[in-house]
Amino acid sequence: MLLNADVGESFGIWTLGRDAEVIPWLDQANIACGFHASDPLTMQKTVCLALAHQVSIGAHPAYPDLIGFGRRSLKVSGEELRALIRYQVGALQAITRAEGGQVDYVKPHGALYNDMMSDAALLQDVMEAIAALNQYSETPLSLMLLSRADNSAVEALAERHQLPLIFEAFADRAYTPSGLLMPRSEPGAVHHDSKLILAQAISLARQQNVSTPSGLLSLKADSLCVHGDNEDSIATVRAIHQALRQN
Amino acid sequence: MLLNADVGESFGIWTLGRDAEVIPWLDQANIACGFHASDPLTMQKTVCLALAHQVSIGAHPAYPDLIGFGRRSLKVSGEELRALIRYQVGALQAITRAEGGQVDYVKPHGALYNDMMSDAALLQDVMEAIAALNQYSETPLSLMLLSRADNSAVEALAERHQLPLIFEAFADRAYTPSGLLMPRSEPGAVHHDSKLILAQAISLARQQNVSTPSGLLSLKADSLCVHGDNEDSIATVRAIHQALRQN
Amino acid sequence: MLLNADVGESFGIWTLGRDAEVIPWLDQANIACGFHASDPLTMQKTVCLALAHQVSIGAHPAYPDLIGFGRRSLKVSGEELRALIRYQVGALQAITRAEGGQVDYVKPHGALYNDMMSDAALLQDVMEAIAALNQYSETPLSLMLLSRADNSAVEALAERHQLPLIFEAFADRAYTPSGLLMPRSEPGAVHHDSKLILAQAISLARQQNVSTPSGLLSLKADSLCVHGDNEDSIATVRAIHQALRQN
Amino acid sequence: MLLNADVGESFGIWTLGRDAEVIPWLDQANIACGFHASDPLTMQKTVCLALAHQVSIGAHPAYPDLIGFGRRSLKVSGEELRALIRYQVGALQAITRAEGGQVDYVKPHGALYNDMMSDAALLQDVMEAIAALNQYSETPLSLMLLSRADNSAVEALAERHQLPLIFEAFADRAYTPSGLLMPRSEPGAVHHDSKLILAQAISLARQQNVSTPSGLLSLKADSLCVHGDNEDSIATVRAIHQALRQN
Repeated sequence: MLLNADVGESFGIWTLGRDAEVIPWLDQANIACGFHASDPLTMQKTVCLALAHQVSIGAHPAYPDLIGFGRRSLKVSGEELRALIRYQVGALQAITRAEGGQVDYVKPHGALYNDMMSDAALLQDVMEAIAALNQYSETPLSLMLLSRADNSAVEALAERHQLPLIFEAFADRAYTPSGLLMPRSEPGAVHHDSKLILAQAISLARQQNVSTPSGLLSLKADSLCVHGDNEDSIATVRAIHQALRQN
Repeated sequence: MLLNADVGESFGIWTLGRDAEVIPWLDQANIACGFHASDPLTMQKTVCLALAHQVSIGAHPAYPDLIGFGRRSLKVSGEELRALIRYQVGALQAITRAEGGQVDYVKPHGALYNDMMSDAALLQDVMEAIAALNQYSETPLSLMLLSRADNSAVEALAERHQLPLIFEAFADRAYTPSGLLMPRSEPGAVHHDSKLILAQAISLARQQNVSTPSGLLSLKADSLCVHGDNEDSIATVRAIHQALRQN
Repeated sequence: MLLNADVGESFGIWTLGRDAEVIPWLDQANIACGFHASDPLTMQKTVCLALAHQVSIGAHPAYPDLIGFGRRSLKVSGEELRALIRYQVGALQAITRAEGGQVDYVKPHGALYNDMMSDAALLQDVMEAIAALNQYSETPLSLMLLSRADNSAVEALAERHQLPLIFEAFADRAYTPSGLLMPRSEPGAVHHDSKLILAQAISLARQQNVSTPSGLLSLKADSLCVHGDNEDSIATVRAIHQALRQN
Repeated sequence: MLLNADVGESFGIWTLGRDAEVIPWLDQANIACGFHASDPLTMQKTVCLALAHQVSIGAHPAYPDLIGFGRRSLKVSGEELRALIRYQVGALQAITRAEGGQVDYVKPHGALYNDMMSDAALLQDVMEAIAALNQYSETPLSLMLLSRADNSAVEALAERHQLPLIFEAFADRAYTPSGLLMPRSEPGAVHHDSKLILAQAISLARQQNVSTPSGLLSLKADSLCVHGDNEDSIATVRAIHQALRQN
């Protein structure tokens, strides 16, 4: 079980997150590409930080919306979506390549991530965007996305695009009986008790299952999405990292 | 002698230039990368147009200044400059790769181009930006820049970076005796007579020299920079294209 | 019956529309404020053009989306919406005031206009945004919006905000029996025959009614929205202007 | 002697400065207007904070450069400069007016401030930008700028534009014998000892003079520029505030 987090989300003079503290505990760094956060110089510094800690680098493309931090849906055509994903992935690839590294995967950000999980046509556009980059590459980019109770449709689509998938799950979010993330508006949607978070992480890692209001649910997960915004969340990441190593 | 022009400089709903009309007559298309003009979808369309006409594709990176069309100098550190060039080049590379093509060269735009020609430290940063991308590539990117009476210092610097150069010259601009472009503020700085433009193009192509107020000047040129903004300039491009083919 | 059009929609080096040709025929100029199009200098020039032809000036605020030209919905809170409308209106007010003129009304642009017409809560936010500016002003800003078969709810809401309204209608669009604009996807949604456009303009001006598939519909209209994008549309504006003067 | 500080410099999700802690100790709040920092919603919140503490509101316009935080010079024509200052001032005026307040003065930011102090033509453009807004206003905007050993030329220029001036000085910066700020590259350019800062504040307030390497220099100052970035600087602001009250 790997750990991933969104990093490199500073912008110009403004800092966000504690990248230097959280990156050492990660396996995969989802690096912002300038559309919802970051700028070329911030990307450069984040890439160097990830490479210094041998953390796998992922592109974290978004809708073009700095003011809204990429959290608002934006209607784009399939053609425009493919172009803006390739633009952002390519920008990060060049910055990473110049430092001797490579981009391993793509994880869409915010509203684009949510839209991709709820709209099959949009997911297909995302897959086409990445698959076309893989055609001429020896080390194909994977797509990181949300694991759900039934991933078969997503897997079939990915197979048609010859696109490797990385399924992620959450240790700090409650799940519904059908395997969706409990909406944040619900009470108890986000776990704050670190013991509970640790238990869910270990359960996902060992048994590939998660507790829901109606019992245990089987959930495939290659990676856990964690957060590095503040001291508490970083302590939790470290604890998960250590617990997983012990197991 | 090749012909190059700045293309793909539309932005969102706003169009600029007559790309569809001028690209068929070009050998090299300098494609804007979103910092002074263009956006991912416009880049995608421009790349397809260039590939359809077998025109070599160059990245045309700029200072981040849409409002000023990249024509204003912006003080950036060497580190920031390298990052923003790689960002733009990489973005275009991914969009091009997805269509089965490749980016062959980099030509900085506007104020960045002028600053690079007048500031050796900045030129070195530009070269380092590109050279680092070439380290891990089988087909290295070239740098397109302005040919001057004495290119030896530039060539020595490029050799240290193992960076191929493409020297460009202008058929429609008057040159000073020392081989610089006559400033636009001077009378006669820009040729409007198409016979004069053709004659200068042919002279540069055949004898690698150009007329100046104090006589002929030897000027190395691999490519002529032409323009595709309006009917007249496109007619001139076509005429230069045909004249060069006949010679 | 007045004539209004969206103008000042150039951006930096990119021009859009034929403002200098259409503004002389207008009574009201809806001037872009930098969020979907325009920039401070373009606004300045457009204001001067409108003042030179004694055309009433309206602010044309939009969602912040240059790439999408303000044509895509963007989820914003009521507080954010009020702030971004005031920001844009105030920016135009200062530029106009410096030239000795004043902004007379506000007409939201594109997706913001459509959202306002279909979402009563959003319309109320728009009204509050403007009404708060009117509290301390001697010459209150009006709100320009789409006239429909039944404007009573809109008028009641405006009265609560003491907000003068300007109802606009279209001479070149077909109407549904219930008084909505025929969706552009329907055949015949946009009139191209200038005789038909003129007839609809005159019918709206004289009888305040419009033809629909199921007969004449009464439609209040203070202003007709016209377009100045190309030679044909400008010729139509001139013809409508002259026909209305004769009547 | 008044205290002013740059506030409202957050942007979207990114926060900067501790506005809620420093504003209560200020007399004048220089509020960013969206070009180097801030956005409409942030401006709205900052205005409410200033009004709640009865702090005078100033517009803090800048060159359009979010990535560079307005700290880089940008070549703009006089016409463009006037337009972009009016745009930003007007945007803040509308947001402030809607809350029942008013903008009292304008203090250019960063590189625009420095350019204005070193380039008389640019200072004249800034003054014209503001003076044109004052023509039709009962409560004229003032211009806040740096006090120097000899302010007579600036005062003469302002008088021609009937523009009230607010001269500011620094308690935490060393001054050269000729009354300029010691460049930050020099050792000792910035005071860190709070006793020294307090002494300089009191000296400026009581005797209108300041220590320099060659003795006391007379320096007119209406307002002291202070900073609210961190706990230390806020403690210093509070100490200056209390010391000035006692005197």
